[in-house]
Amino acid sequence: MKSDLDALMQERNMDALLVFGGAEHNPPMYYFCGGGHVRGALLIKKRSESPVLFYNDMEREEAARSGLQIRSFREYDLEEFKKQAGDDLLLASALRWEKILSDLGIRRGRVGVYGRTEFSSLFGLIARLQARLPEVEFIGEPETASVFMQAMQTKDPSEVERIRGMGKITVEVVRRVAEYLTHREVREDEVVLREDRQPLTIGDVKSKIHLWIAELGAENPEGTIFAIGRDAGIPHSTGKAEDEVRLGQTIVFDIFPCEAGGGYFYDFTRTWCLGYAPPEAQTLYQQVREVYEQVRESLQPGTPFKEYQRRVCEYFESKGHPSPLHTKAPLEGYVHSIGHGVGLNIHERPFSSLQTDDDHRLLPGTVITLEPGLYYPEKGLGIRLEDTYWLRPDGTLERLAEYPYDLVLPMKNV
Amino acid sequence: MKSDLDALMQERNMDALLVFGGAEHNPPMYYFCGGGHVRGALLIKKRSESPVLFYNDMEREEAARSGLQIRSFREYDLEEFKKQAGDDLLLASALRWEKILSDLGIRRGRVGVYGRTEFSSLFGLIARLQARLPEVEFIGEPETASVFMQAMQTKDPSEVERIRGMGKITVEVVRRVAEYLTHREVREDEVVLREDRQPLTIGDVKSKIHLWIAELGAENPEGTIFAIGRDAGIPHSTGKAEDEVRLGQTIVFDIFPCEAGGGYFYDFTRTWCLGYAPPEAQTLYQQVREVYEQVRESLQPGTPFKEYQRRVCEYFESKGHPSPLHTKAPLEGYVHSIGHGVGLNIHERPFSSLQTDDDHRLLPGTVITLEPGLYYPEKGLGIRLEDTYWLRPDGTLERLAEYPYDLVLPMKNV
Repeated sequence: MKSDLDALMQERNMDALLVFGGAEHNPPMYYFCGGGHVRGALLIKKRSESPVLFYNDMEREEAARSGLQIRSFREYDLEEFKKQAGDDLLLASALRWEKILSDLGIRRGRVGVYGRTEFSSLFGLIARLQARLPEVEFIGEPETASVFMQAMQTKDPSEVERIRGMGKITVEVVRRVAEYLTHREVREDEVVLREDRQPLTIGDVKSKIHLWIAELGAENPEGTIFAIGRDAGIPHSTGKAEDEVRLGQTIVFDIFPCEAGGGYFYDFTRTWCLGYAPPEAQTLYQQVREVYEQVRESLQPGTPFKEYQRRVCEYFESKGHPSPLHTKAPLEGYVHSIGHGVGLNIHERPFSSLQTDDDHRLLPGTVITLEPGLYYPEKGLGIRLEDTYWLRPDGTLERLAEYPYDLVLPMKNV
Repeated sequence: MKSDLDALMQERNMDALLVFGGAEHNPPMYYFCGGGHVRGALLIKKRSESPVLFYNDMEREEAARSGLQIRSFREYDLEEFKKQAGDDLLLASALRWEKILSDLGIRRGRVGVYGRTEFSSLFGLIARLQARLPEVEFIGEPETASVFMQAMQTKDPSEVERIRGMGKITVEVVRRVAEYLTHREVREDEVVLREDRQPLTIGDVKSKIHLWIAELGAENPEGTIFAIGRDAGIPHSTGKAEDEVRLGQTIVFDIFPCEAGGGYFYDFTRTWCLGYAPPEAQTLYQQVREVYEQVRESLQPGTPFKEYQRRVCEYFESKGHPSPLHTKAPLEGYVHSIGHGVGLNIHERPFSSLQTDDDHRLLPGTVITLEPGLYYPEKGLGIRLEDTYWLRPDGTLERLAEYPYDLVLPMKNV
């Protein structure tokens, strides 16, 4: 939680954190600002002190709305620093930041640098700043192990409520998609038809998904997976827009919207066959469903997440599927890991691949996905089921949105 | 244009470019890949050679769709590098990249680093790589002057067509908003009402705008400005969701959507008063409109863009308004600059503030906005008009989407 940041900084011997960029789609900045249209900002947090947000005058109202302590960049006139820096634009910015850091009493020590932003200019700026401030050590941390990712790993109740709110929107979109798909006419060759009796394509369905996400007040900055047949068998293929929707083929529908303005995510997958499911799809589906329930029921707080990945691999291997346990980066069978944390990042701690450290534990307060799957692209088959869960402070597991698991969606008479 | 990249690299004595991250909302990567759902990728372009895209296996189909030369990260097994790196995750990645660079023959020289991505881990990785490769100089360039921004400054016809397509969507959304606003009932106190006879809020209107943007197949990753009264007088205030829409107040509606998946933008603003406009709003509007037409008609290819900023400042000052020409960072009057380039970035070269270099010129092939405005937040007034233009290869200026300029939108009888 955010309140852990000071302790985490202490643990890593870090004296200050610098966060760059706007709040939108920039998790560390959003974490402090709670959203808003602040652009090109600089947030400085010293250990055991409240953060200070430096903003551009054009965004003074948005900055004020953050509730943080704010200061205008206007106090540090860039034109003056440009005079000192000659033609070197990045040096001018570095001189400005040097003065800001100095005014906040940051003249030495270990300073972490963060933010989702344009890399090149900030890299050039920090390089110049580092050259001028030999007693400061600017530190880049691995994304999955940074102080922010560590703090974000456990959620306070207000964060869980926001994720739950996104869950509500997510299953409503999924419900509308199921309703739409099952109320369609079907051609003799099992191709599903649009209102205008042309073949319904993946692109058509995705347009509706994105429309409904927007209508319900959310965003989908990371896209949506709606993939059929062979594409359903490649976990990160998002589906080809021109592919036609047909009966009896597995459709993997993985939807991961976030709050408008780049806030909290939800992550959810169902696999559907319209009309009927071929026997092989049914068999794979039953296995995925079974291991999903096993994991859900056996989950214990405090356990390393990868422990469940190992069990899922063992289960799938016992059914004859390749898995990462004994096959290196398999391209078919069980090819990914059992889940991940969800929050301001669609993928965050704890992670569950067999290579993760033991400290990716299922701590109370963690919000995670469970998402076993099986993939056989050459057979045109892919199956995945996924929900987002909160491991409550009392150690029980709560699914944050309810939705049926049916593989077959029977077509309604239209 | 993209074909200028090699010459730009030569000019700056750069031997290679490294671009990080996914294609979505990451202009340099999008520029090469043309979009797609490629995540965590690494693109390497050596001078005078075609780029090579390194991808993760999960995204192999998406990578192939880019049409670029592609290579799988699988060829460089991270687990092996982790064994060498001990606990240092970023060092493991750095060792992997060192091998990739070496295999592509990059062992010395000047290498630019780019991409819109999470800063911290990449900074840590490059720092380790730099320490290991003393003969390579990793270079961060100022965002507004990078080789990419320079190349992107002029568009080829296929890029202009995509911007034009976004223009068509933009004005259709604006048309729907105007239609919706003018077909509403109004309470005695001039508050506009929703269908349920509750006051219509800025938040309600924004929901509709975002819905229609999605419905027409676009995105608005940078938000939308729909601000009324005092907020209209603060150029970057996006409008407060709870504010009520009323007759006779200036509404600044600045909309800047992009293609779905993070492609080309369009930028457009109109200022409206519903029902009637107070005399002072009319006066300011006439001045903004007049200087807008003056600039549009006088624009000459080859001229530094800021030359027109100077003229606009002179015009506004002649009417008694503060401007950046003689007031430092004014908070009322004319407070920003006359325009900017538009493309894969909502703001790109050429820029037009008085501080820009002369090389921000109106070259043929440039796509720019023209957007004069006047702001008096304490009086509850703001006016801006903006369209996106293409400076055609023949030197003529073409507005990429047509829409009326009316200040007053008469309310229809409902």
